[in-house]
Amino acid sequence: MNTKITKRMTFCAGHRLYNPQLSDEKNLEIYGPCSHPGGHGHNYILEVTVSGAIDPKTGMIINLRSMKEIISREIIAKVDHKNLNSDVDFMRGIIPTTENFAAEIWKILDRSFGGELLQKIMLRETENNCVEICR
Amino acid sequence: MNTKITKRMTFCAGHRLYNPQLSDEKNLEIYGPCSHPGGHGHNYILEVTVSGAIDPKTGMIINLRSMKEIISREIIAKVDHKNLNSDVDFMRGIIPTTENFAAEIWKILDRSFGGELLQKIMLRETENNCVEICR
Amino acid sequence: MNTKITKRMTFCAGHRLYNPQLSDEKNLEIYGPCSHPGGHGHNYILEVTVSGAIDPKTGMIINLRSMKEIISREIIAKVDHKNLNSDVDFMRGIIPTTENFAAEIWKILDRSFGGELLQKIMLRETENNCVEICR
Amino acid sequence: MNTKITKRMTFCAGHRLYNPQLSDEKNLEIYGPCSHPGGHGHNYILEVTVSGAIDPKTGMIINLRSMKEIISREIIAKVDHKNLNSDVDFMRGIIPTTENFAAEIWKILDRSFGGELLQKIMLRETENNCVEICR
Amino acid sequence: MNTKITKRMTFCAGHRLYNPQLSDEKNLEIYGPCSHPGGHGHNYILEVTVSGAIDPKTGMIINLRSMKEIISREIIAKVDHKNLNSDVDFMRGIIPTTENFAAEIWKILDRSFGGELLQKIMLRETENNCVEICR
Amino acid sequence: MNTKITKRMTFCAGHRLYNPQLSDEKNLEIYGPCSHPGGHGHNYILEVTVSGAIDPKTGMIINLRSMKEIISREIIAKVDHKNLNSDVDFMRGIIPTTENFAAEIWKILDRSFGGELLQKIMLRETENNCVEICR
Repeated sequence: MNTKITKRMTFCAGHRLYNPQLSDEKNLEIYGPCSHPGGHGHNYILEVTVSGAIDPKTGMIINLRSMKEIISREIIAKVDHKNLNSDVDFMRGIIPTTENFAAEIWKILDRSFGGELLQKIMLRETENNCVEICR
Repeated sequence: MNTKITKRMTFCAGHRLYNPQLSDEKNLEIYGPCSHPGGHGHNYILEVTVSGAIDPKTGMIINLRSMKEIISREIIAKVDHKNLNSDVDFMRGIIPTTENFAAEIWKILDRSFGGELLQKIMLRETENNCVEICR
Repeated sequence: MNTKITKRMTFCAGHRLYNPQLSDEKNLEIYGPCSHPGGHGHNYILEVTVSGAIDPKTGMIINLRSMKEIISREIIAKVDHKNLNSDVDFMRGIIPTTENFAAEIWKILDRSFGGELLQKIMLRETENNCVEICR
Repeated sequence: MNTKITKRMTFCAGHRLYNPQLSDEKNLEIYGPCSHPGGHGHNYILEVTVSGAIDPKTGMIINLRSMKEIISREIIAKVDHKNLNSDVDFMRGIIPTTENFAAEIWKILDRSFGGELLQKIMLRETENNCVEICR
Repeated sequence: MNTKITKRMTFCAGHRLYNPQLSDEKNLEIYGPCSHPGGHGHNYILEVTVSGAIDPKTGMIINLRSMKEIISREIIAKVDHKNLNSDVDFMRGIIPTTENFAAEIWKILDRSFGGELLQKIMLRETENNCVEICR
Repeated sequence: MNTKITKRMTFCAGHRLYNPQLSDEKNLEIYGPCSHPGGHGHNYILEVTVSGAIDPKTGMIINLRSMKEIISREIIAKVDHKNLNSDVDFMRGIIPTTENFAAEIWKILDRSFGGELLQKIMLRETENNCVEICR
C-alpha cells in the first residue's frame, strides 16, 4: 500500500516563448503565437504530491499546512503575478515552456521537502495541456 | 418563454493594471500585485449569450458556427496570445481590468450581432472572479 | 428578495440534426457534421430552477427530492440512453437541436411543477454550448 | 448596459437538518438522511455579485480585494470549519437548509455592501444543488 | 499495455480531527480549525480504479454497475450523510484525516474486489487536497 | 526525474453496446440501457500523455501542436460526430465499450507517435467513469 497526498495551488503569470539563439522566423515556427513579443499569460494550476508513511499520532503523511507553507514560500511568492521571462530568479536564462518551468519547480520543491518525500508535481498551463514530473 | 443560447470560448492574454495618471504608490494601493511592471496574464473564458425566437426551419436561434465565427474574428483573433496593454487596438488607452475589457468586448459584439440579439457576456479572469454584462 | 433553488441532473442521449424537408446539401450546410446519417450523441446536463417563498416549517422552497422525482420521471426516464430522433415521444417530428429540446423540456416541467414555480432551465450539450429558457 | 462583478469563495461546514417542533418521523420524512442526529457537512461555494458603474479612475465597479475582505470578515470567518447548528450566531434557531442559510448571508452582505450594490448571491451545497438570491 | 477503469462516486460526511491522547492546545496546533469541537464536513469524491484484462465477450474489465454496487454497499451506504467520528463502524477509534479514511476504504474495497483487481483509490476532500492509495 | 506532457482533446460520438453473439436478454443483462437498439452517445474527453527528454533547444518534449495534429488526424477526424458502431473503420466488429475503444485508440497512437513516446491515454466517457491505458 502506497499512500500519497496532493495539495493544489494556483497562480497567474506572464511569459513569452522565445529562444534568443534562433531567428524570429524559427521562433515563430516552433512557438507559434506564444513567441509574440508582447507576451501573454496563464492561470497556472500546480499540484504537488508527496508520499510516505502515515504518522499514527496525527493520521497524516505531512501536514497540509506545511505543504502550503513550503509551496507558497518557495514557488507561489516568486511567480504569482510575475513575468516568467524577466522577474523570476530561478527561470533566468530558461525558456519558460511548461516542461522547463515544471523542471525548475521540481528541483526547488525536491530540495525543500527533502528525503524522497516529493513524489510528483503537475503543472497545468491551460485546460488542454499540462506537464507532470515524477520520481 | 425567453430562450437564450450561449457559446463558450477561451483565450489567454497578458496584462498589467496601471493608471499612468496616478503615482506608483497609488497604483500599488489600488491594483496590488496586478500593477507589477513586468505584467502577468490569464486564461480567460468568454461566454456569449444571444436570445431570440427559434427559427422553425432550423430549430435554432442562431447557428453556433456563426456565433463562433463572429466571436473568433471580432475578439479571439485580436486578443489571444496578445498583451492587452500594448497589442490590442480596441484596448488602447484603457486600463485592462476585467470590467473595462468586458465593456469593450460587449460594444464590439453588440455591433457585430446587430439588433438586440446580444443578451449577455460573461468574461472570467480566474476561477474566483468574473464580470457579466447584460442588456 | 427573490430566492431560487436549482437541481442539476445528467443524462446521455443520441441524436442527428436533420430537417427532412430540406436537401442533404442544405442540411449539411446548416448542421455540418451534426447531420451525419449515423448520428452521434452527448452527455447532457440539465439544471432546473424553481423560485418561491421559503416555507418557514421546512426552510425549503421545495423539497429537492420532489424536484429530483419530478425531473427523473418526466424527463430523465424518457431520454436517458435513448435516441432523441426515434425513441422519445415528446420529440416526435421535432429537430433535436438544443433549443428545440430545451423548449419541449420546459413545456413538460412547467406543467409538472404547476403555478409559476418553474423559473429557468439550462440544458448543456457540451462544455462549449448550452441553452437557457426562463419565464 | 448593466455590469456586474462576481467573487467566488469557498468554505466547509457541518450541519443537520431538523425542525425541533416536529417529530423525528416527520423530520425523517422531510429531510431524509440530512436529519441524521450525528450531522454531516459540505464544501460550500459562495459567489457574491455586485453591480454598479465602472469608476473611470480605477476601471473597477468595486475592488475585488474589498469584496474578499468583506465576505471573509462577515461570512467566511464565521462559518468556515464550523457547525451551522451550534457555532454560528446568525444561524441561531434557524434550520440550516441552503435556502435559509443563503437568506441570512444575503441580509448580512446587503447591509455590509450598502446601497443597492449587492445584486445576487449563489450558495452551492453540492455539485447537484444550489440556491440563488437576487434583488 | 495495462488497462484500468475508474468509477467516480460522491458522498458528504461530517468529521472533526482530534487526537484524544493529546491536549487541546496540541490538537489545535496540529489540526487548526479542523479540531473545532462542533465539527464540520465535506463533499467527498471517491474514485476507485481496477485493472485487469478486457473480457472479449463483454469488452469490459469489470461491469461498471458491479463496481457501483460494491462501492455503494461497502462504502457509500456507511458514510454518506454520516459523522465519521461517531457513526461509522470502520472508523471507530481512528482519527478521520483523509489519509486514515482512505486507508480504511482501501482495505475494505481490496477485500471486496478480491484478487489484485483494485489498483488505486483517490479520495478528494476539497478542490485543493486529495489522497491516493495504490498497490 | 521522469517528465510527461499531456494534451486534452474532446469529441462526441454515438454508440450502442451489444454483442451480436448473445441473446437480447443477455445483452440487456450485461449492458443495461446501453444495449438499447436506438443507441445513445457521449461527449468524450481524450487525454494523451507522452514522456521523454526535454529538448534543450526548444524546452519541449514534443511540440503540443504536433501532438494536436497527430491526435486530430488519427483519432478525432475519424470519430467526432460519428457512430462508433457503423462509421468508424478501426472499430469495425468491436463492441464499443470504453475499454475496447481506448485499446484501439492506444494502438493507433502508439504507432503514430512511434518509439516509446506514448506513455498513457485517458478516455473519459462521462463525469463518473473513464479508462486509462499505460505502457
